[in-house]
Amino acid sequence: MSAPVTISIDAMGGDHAPEMVVEGVRLAHVRLPHVRYLLFGDAQRIEPLLEKAPEIKGVCTVRHTDEAVSNDAKPSQVLRTGRRSSMWLAVDAVAKGEAAGVVSAGNTGALMAVSKFVLRMLPGIDRPAIAGLFPTEKGETVMLDLGANVDCNANNLVEFAVMGEVFARAVLGLEQPSVGLLNVGSEDMKGNDAVKAAAAALRDSPLPIRFHGFVEGNDIGAGTVDVVVTDGFTGNIALKTAEGTVKFYSSFLRQAFQSSILAKIGYIFAKHALNKVKMRTDPRRYNGAMFLGLNGIAVKSHGGTDAFGFANAIAVAVDLVAHGYNERIRKEFDRLNPQDPPTQRAAGNG
Amino acid sequence: MSAPVTISIDAMGGDHAPEMVVEGVRLAHVRLPHVRYLLFGDAQRIEPLLEKAPEIKGVCTVRHTDEAVSNDAKPSQVLRTGRRSSMWLAVDAVAKGEAAGVVSAGNTGALMAVSKFVLRMLPGIDRPAIAGLFPTEKGETVMLDLGANVDCNANNLVEFAVMGEVFARAVLGLEQPSVGLLNVGSEDMKGNDAVKAAAAALRDSPLPIRFHGFVEGNDIGAGTVDVVVTDGFTGNIALKTAEGTVKFYSSFLRQAFQSSILAKIGYIFAKHALNKVKMRTDPRRYNGAMFLGLNGIAVKSHGGTDAFGFANAIAVAVDLVAHGYNERIRKEFDRLNPQDPPTQRAAGNG
Repeated sequence: MSAPVTISIDAMGGDHAPEMVVEGVRLAHVRLPHVRYLLFGDAQRIEPLLEKAPEIKGVCTVRHTDEAVSNDAKPSQVLRTGRRSSMWLAVDAVAKGEAAGVVSAGNTGALMAVSKFVLRMLPGIDRPAIAGLFPTEKGETVMLDLGANVDCNANNLVEFAVMGEVFARAVLGLEQPSVGLLNVGSEDMKGNDAVKAAAAALRDSPLPIRFHGFVEGNDIGAGTVDVVVTDGFTGNIALKTAEGTVKFYSSFLRQAFQSSILAKIGYIFAKHALNKVKMRTDPRRYNGAMFLGLNGIAVKSHGGTDAFGFANAIAVAVDLVAHGYNERIRKEFDRLNPQDPPTQRAAGNG
Repeated sequence: MSAPVTISIDAMGGDHAPEMVVEGVRLAHVRLPHVRYLLFGDAQRIEPLLEKAPEIKGVCTVRHTDEAVSNDAKPSQVLRTGRRSSMWLAVDAVAKGEAAGVVSAGNTGALMAVSKFVLRMLPGIDRPAIAGLFPTEKGETVMLDLGANVDCNANNLVEFAVMGEVFARAVLGLEQPSVGLLNVGSEDMKGNDAVKAAAAALRDSPLPIRFHGFVEGNDIGAGTVDVVVTDGFTGNIALKTAEGTVKFYSSFLRQAFQSSILAKIGYIFAKHALNKVKMRTDPRRYNGAMFLGLNGIAVKSHGGTDAFGFANAIAVAVDLVAHGYNERIRKEFDRLNPQDPPTQRAAGNG
């Protein structure tokens, strides 16, 4: 049904790699039979896994390397010495045009550094950001930055707003997504200098962005806006706080349903409905964060995810390819920055 | 059973004041019959409410003022012109020794500024912080700062760690609470400059603090540490993100239990157990954030809370009085800073 797409995979990234990765590819294959994979990593460990999953042998090509990036490697060190690692080679496959996007569950900082170096930034963008989807009462919300930049100034936040808005149009299919800046209150005087200056810039700017103003932490789950913009420190903590809250709430629920005979009977009746809630809030369903601002599609999977989560990260990459996300964001930025000659800015890219 | 305690109340603070406040006092009175109240605010509005609640007429004294602090008033403006406001007078009652603590659901920034000015800081403490309790899988965790300081340096974070540790010993009754610094990862190299320097200081310091190291957003709900330390910007957003997540999760659950006949039957059986989950995660139960570092007990209630939540904020203030929190934290700081002559540092306080 769809044209073939090739995704390159860092088969050695993640806590349970390569087993989890190969099983994730197998699960993704069921949903996305038109996708081909380039698997980078230790062939001696990957090949036997493929032997046990014959249905995907035909869509997978293994590219051997015996180097991998460890979880505690510093990004600068990987940039200096990691050129033969499975992560680097997988990203490089996108730069060379052999793959349309890359997925890795490895070291986030290293993946960001390698992607920036190998794929380069899109013209007109200063810093990349990590964007993800959150479930909300109304549907889904895009949030960024989820951890690429621990220190952000007002300009970075404005750039994230633009990138997030285009991402929401491409991935959520919204015509004019609303954008909010995460803050400690909704009044103008609230917040630190960076958010106050960014709000002023977004209000006054000629950008065709539907800027809602400030939003607070509880607005994320309420779905008050389609795009929540924040710095990578706060965004990462908000994301993990939400995940942790879902986890402890469901553990309370589990205990409650075990607490009496009546509750156990109630669980049996309500099981089907409860499974839907579990699915709707399953962090694995929201696995796969996109690196925005790069000249190529790079998706980061949670390091601790399982095969189901990894398959979702693959689906995010395939979705972004299908929606031509990179071309769209490049066009938006060209439209927004007509003063910069695109040819000059694009020099050295791609 | 207990010795009488007087709490001063800003009767005009909060979205639904003074009705919500008087009803909150009535609910608190049921649990805490030994507490007396000084209610500051518009007597013409408060007296009729007390007429309708004769059981608390005997424990309440109304002190009239026709001024109140609005929600959008700037703290600096309140400091200049707000001396006759219900908030100021309620705080002043603590400074004068007429009340053992104050509770307000009014403007947070103004309450902090007025409390700092009127009550003054405890000797040896540079900046106050707002601390609150979070429900976790293991019990309860103290988190601070929840919004008093949007910009914090490493020294502020170290000070918060000390104050939070004493708070956890006083309120949670722990002998040696563990303390974690909120960050985007647990590795040493992760985070912004402030958290990295604060972690180094806490690791090397002679303070008798059980420092766990960095924790992440998901560690809050997991209850990994007893005290979570962060700046007021991130802390406020994490708190509200957690509250928003609980809200949207329970709304998903409600929908699920309405989604089929079987689910509805299941709900009837499990209702009792589910109500326990609701209670355990009810934000109103955790209403009442303490201003730490002041020379007096000041508790901030959520502005949008109802009477049930306000009654809990009163209970927090009474608890802190009963545990002699202020004397304990003052002793800790004297012990920790023996190099500063306490008499000199205490000059002008109390």
